[in-house]
Amino acid sequence: MPSRVPEGAERGWIIPIGGAEEKADGPEILSRFVEIAGGSNANIVVIPTASRMRDTGPKYERVFKELGVGAVESIDFDTRRDAHEENRLVRLDSATGIFFTGGNQLRLSTLIGGTPVAKRLRLLNAAGVHVAGTSAGASFLSEHMIAFGDEGGSAIAGSVRLAPGLGLTNRFVIDQHFRQRDRLGRLVTSLAYNPFAVGIGLDEDTAAMIGPDNELEVAGSGGVTIVDASELEFSSMDQVDEGQPVCLLGLKLHMLVAGASFNLHTRKASAGRLRHSKE
Amino acid sequence: MPSRVPEGAERGWIIPIGGAEEKADGPEILSRFVEIAGGSNANIVVIPTASRMRDTGPKYERVFKELGVGAVESIDFDTRRDAHEENRLVRLDSATGIFFTGGNQLRLSTLIGGTPVAKRLRLLNAAGVHVAGTSAGASFLSEHMIAFGDEGGSAIAGSVRLAPGLGLTNRFVIDQHFRQRDRLGRLVTSLAYNPFAVGIGLDEDTAAMIGPDNELEVAGSGGVTIVDASELEFSSMDQVDEGQPVCLLGLKLHMLVAGASFNLHTRKASAGRLRHSKE
Repeated sequence: MPSRVPEGAERGWIIPIGGAEEKADGPEILSRFVEIAGGSNANIVVIPTASRMRDTGPKYERVFKELGVGAVESIDFDTRRDAHEENRLVRLDSATGIFFTGGNQLRLSTLIGGTPVAKRLRLLNAAGVHVAGTSAGASFLSEHMIAFGDEGGSAIAGSVRLAPGLGLTNRFVIDQHFRQRDRLGRLVTSLAYNPFAVGIGLDEDTAAMIGPDNELEVAGSGGVTIVDASELEFSSMDQVDEGQPVCLLGLKLHMLVAGASFNLHTRKASAGRLRHSKE
Repeated sequence: MPSRVPEGAERGWIIPIGGAEEKADGPEILSRFVEIAGGSNANIVVIPTASRMRDTGPKYERVFKELGVGAVESIDFDTRRDAHEENRLVRLDSATGIFFTGGNQLRLSTLIGGTPVAKRLRLLNAAGVHVAGTSAGASFLSEHMIAFGDEGGSAIAGSVRLAPGLGLTNRFVIDQHFRQRDRLGRLVTSLAYNPFAVGIGLDEDTAAMIGPDNELEVAGSGGVTIVDASELEFSSMDQVDEGQPVCLLGLKLHMLVAGASFNLHTRKASAGRLRHSKE
């Protein structure tokens, strides 16, 4: 369960990114994360656990240093025992921002899930530490995480498997590389089981910047697809065989681009700083 | 423009099919078309013009004969002059059902568009003759036809090109091979220009059976995705550069399966003969 925001505190930002974010040439998304985390005063911990590549942590350290971050360090968790180590927990306590790299979200959930690190991250975010994640790292942030799924635009029973994620929030389910890997079907299917959450499909190089007020604003070069099932009129999910299409009536769909926003609490979409056609 | 239904008459069914419909083993969709067209008394004309393959017409003739159709003949239009020939027009007049095969919808629009055949088909459908089309043949049926488009789930400016189709109706825009070719983005983009029409995305082996009352019922093994943009709150289509994602707020999405229905006039979706979860 998400941690409570302590009295007088404000929750930190939650920033899921769709993968393949620009790193060198005017990296808008990473720059905004750095700015939110304190700019030159930022203290960023990179968690490269999703990745099996040795240079993933150092690569992001270099990127964040080039963006002027005062302190940046990567901390890996290669075993569940690592995620119980007190000195690593203490290091997290000094961070103003945490960044999860891409890779495989099941490495994150199997190595960090249920450990003191997971609990500490929830507490830290509730107390004001900002948490971003890209690709697998984005999927992991929420309470309900897409672990596996098939490609395709239709909702198919059995086309997606959910697993518990880090649990910073339970308001949404994330999918990433969204347009690039044709994932609307699996995102919609993940909501068909229980439509309380908002589905957020993130294109590559695109982020949902979610503030303490639960207002999500889009940054980056692609689109963010919001699937709002709160007014769902009918779901056949309880009566469909594996592999068969699911009947879902009354989904609401918003396709957002940079500058547009969606409030996760009121579920209102807004064109934000985009010019309105009538003007 | 669609022809008016003559006084006392009832418009024929319009049956777009998503391609790759079952032909041999219990072909549900083609059987229903045959039944609607009169069963053993049906008189079906197959128009294989979209296809460049010589055996497309004869293949469907065999399929319809096996389904017990009394009279079936394929009439091809290889040149625009063919579409002015009086004896071919007269042959259409005796049909109870017309069937457009798949292929390339631009062959249909360039060879038949604006000819006496196109006009006659609109008049015949308005007077009660049933018209079905599969794949390219499905796209061609409506006033606004998707001629080209890119794959992908997001709406991208310039990702779709519309062309005038046959014009039996202007209530919807069809896309086919929907799930199989990841076409939500281009269907949504086609509505972003002018949201008056309903977007209908047809999976393979799946049909939208549209009755004279404008009630669409799904038949076949896949899903039909309905995109209803009538309550669109915002579109950035007028200010987006080619290749950039489009911001669209307030789309309504229904994923229908066999038995579910959607009324093209009232825009209400219904689970139809599907069991309701509460029962």
